[in-house]
Amino acid sequence: MLAFVTGAAGFIGSNLVDALLQAGHSVVGFDNLSTGQMEFLKDATQSPCFRLERGDLVDGPHLARAMAGCDFVFHFAANADVRFGLQHPSKDLEQNAIGTWRVLDAMRSNRIERIAFASTGSVYGEPQIFPTPEDAPFPIQTSLYATSKVAAEGLISAYCEGFGMRGYIFRFVSILGERYTHGHVFDFYRQLRVHPEYLEVLGNGRQRKSYLYVKDCVEAIFTALERAEATVNIFNLGPDEYCEVNESIGWICGHLGVSPQIRYAGGERGWIGDSPFIFLDCARIRELGWRPRLNIRQGIVRTVEFLQDNEWVLARR
Amino acid sequence: MLAFVTGAAGFIGSNLVDALLQAGHSVVGFDNLSTGQMEFLKDATQSPCFRLERGDLVDGPHLARAMAGCDFVFHFAANADVRFGLQHPSKDLEQNAIGTWRVLDAMRSNRIERIAFASTGSVYGEPQIFPTPEDAPFPIQTSLYATSKVAAEGLISAYCEGFGMRGYIFRFVSILGERYTHGHVFDFYRQLRVHPEYLEVLGNGRQRKSYLYVKDCVEAIFTALERAEATVNIFNLGPDEYCEVNESIGWICGHLGVSPQIRYAGGERGWIGDSPFIFLDCARIRELGWRPRLNIRQGIVRTVEFLQDNEWVLARR
Repeated sequence: MLAFVTGAAGFIGSNLVDALLQAGHSVVGFDNLSTGQMEFLKDATQSPCFRLERGDLVDGPHLARAMAGCDFVFHFAANADVRFGLQHPSKDLEQNAIGTWRVLDAMRSNRIERIAFASTGSVYGEPQIFPTPEDAPFPIQTSLYATSKVAAEGLISAYCEGFGMRGYIFRFVSILGERYTHGHVFDFYRQLRVHPEYLEVLGNGRQRKSYLYVKDCVEAIFTALERAEATVNIFNLGPDEYCEVNESIGWICGHLGVSPQIRYAGGERGWIGDSPFIFLDCARIRELGWRPRLNIRQGIVRTVEFLQDNEWVLARR
Repeated sequence: MLAFVTGAAGFIGSNLVDALLQAGHSVVGFDNLSTGQMEFLKDATQSPCFRLERGDLVDGPHLARAMAGCDFVFHFAANADVRFGLQHPSKDLEQNAIGTWRVLDAMRSNRIERIAFASTGSVYGEPQIFPTPEDAPFPIQTSLYATSKVAAEGLISAYCEGFGMRGYIFRFVSILGERYTHGHVFDFYRQLRVHPEYLEVLGNGRQRKSYLYVKDCVEAIFTALERAEATVNIFNLGPDEYCEVNESIGWICGHLGVSPQIRYAGGERGWIGDSPFIFLDCARIRELGWRPRLNIRQGIVRTVEFLQDNEWVLARR
């Protein structure tokens, strides 16, 4: 197929592009390079089956032109700046919700009928049920980021119902691995590089989170696309485990051979809207035969290794 | 208090304005009069405690100026054109989701901390549980209208969490009564006035729906504002019953003394995104002491009487 990937130069997007090319597909990447990195497309750009279109989702006509002739849209572009949503309250809405509407509109004008979407486990707000299944109780949103993803999910579902499209919505836990450029491993690594003798931690370190290795994430997406056939297909994607931030700190420090003094900012949450416990029930995707190859500890170590080998990403933010 | 009411000249908004004035509050109404009617504010405009600001939610600075000095915002303006969402797919998003964001932004700049919001039972999509409680399973959206309301709910919740506001979100069944200007009673009455010998019905007439009388709806809102104190308070508002469209047709025709031939368009749904069964679990608001005064049949008859006495509304659409 000819796949269209928004956010193609991003962390997950670029890993997806490589996997699509490797599976024999052709890919048109779309990225405004605001946070994406050309370096992440180093392999892809050597393939005759890849083309990058530099553009922004706000430019609907450009988006529609770039999408012409494609069979499938992977919408992975997003404002992923979860923590700072309250500092620019319209950004999530504009980039994630309206951006998704523009993608759907461009698909309609090109008669493209299939879309896969990168959503988030944050849509469950602060759930009461763990692990949290896809049909958990209707959540109360606690962050603008998750709200914008819920809105995008709804737009996709309503378009699928209304215009005969098929949608695949993936609610990710935190993803890590090669090309990871933000999140707690990034923050901790950057700190420890400058001051290995202490580490500042948001919250109390007791936050419990799930992490999935990016290549496992991409494999799960491929599994769902092959085997799920509803009009709207929603999948949690994560491992069947979680860890405390403190455990993660132990693995990172152990790998780096440092023993910092830990300074906690305090409080149950890292920031307003941070969920102190994320652990998704992934039975639905497991039933289709997928399972992750790396556990959380292995994924975290792999991520630290990537950062060690690619210190240039530390400077880009 | 000094209340700010968006959609003040609309069906529910104008009934709310009258009730607020009657309860001794002062009110600033905000409406672009695109679907609202000055006639509905006939009583209110005679009160020295009421002022109407004619404006549109797209004009954020005007909205913020108009809101200055108010204590409480009732956000009741919306594109309520549920059925035709697919004909103008960006309208719901712009008017309902982005409109709500503009309201929240204007509140923030005026340091107004309380908001009540008119949402909809449609946010449950096509639920599996009846009556449907507020914490029903996370729904898949089937209409752009409901998606835009889900997005608005999320924005309100995230602002409440993030900026110390308090929110009251009301998920209405279909509301009817005085000043009702769209929906099946309106359509049926208008048809029967022109051709009492037949009636065209969308779907198969077996759709099951709940209806709440507008004054009962406003009383429920007042009850919640007095007695609910969470950061985000979500209430279903409806009666503890539902009816088939066919029953409603019987009541309308009986009241009008006509016996039309019924012509069904067929299908389970009236239109794409229409939910064939809406029946909300309203135990949460009932526990606060509220109960409706009119049952569905009485509400429908009251609505027909209003239309008979105010045929001018038929011409306005």
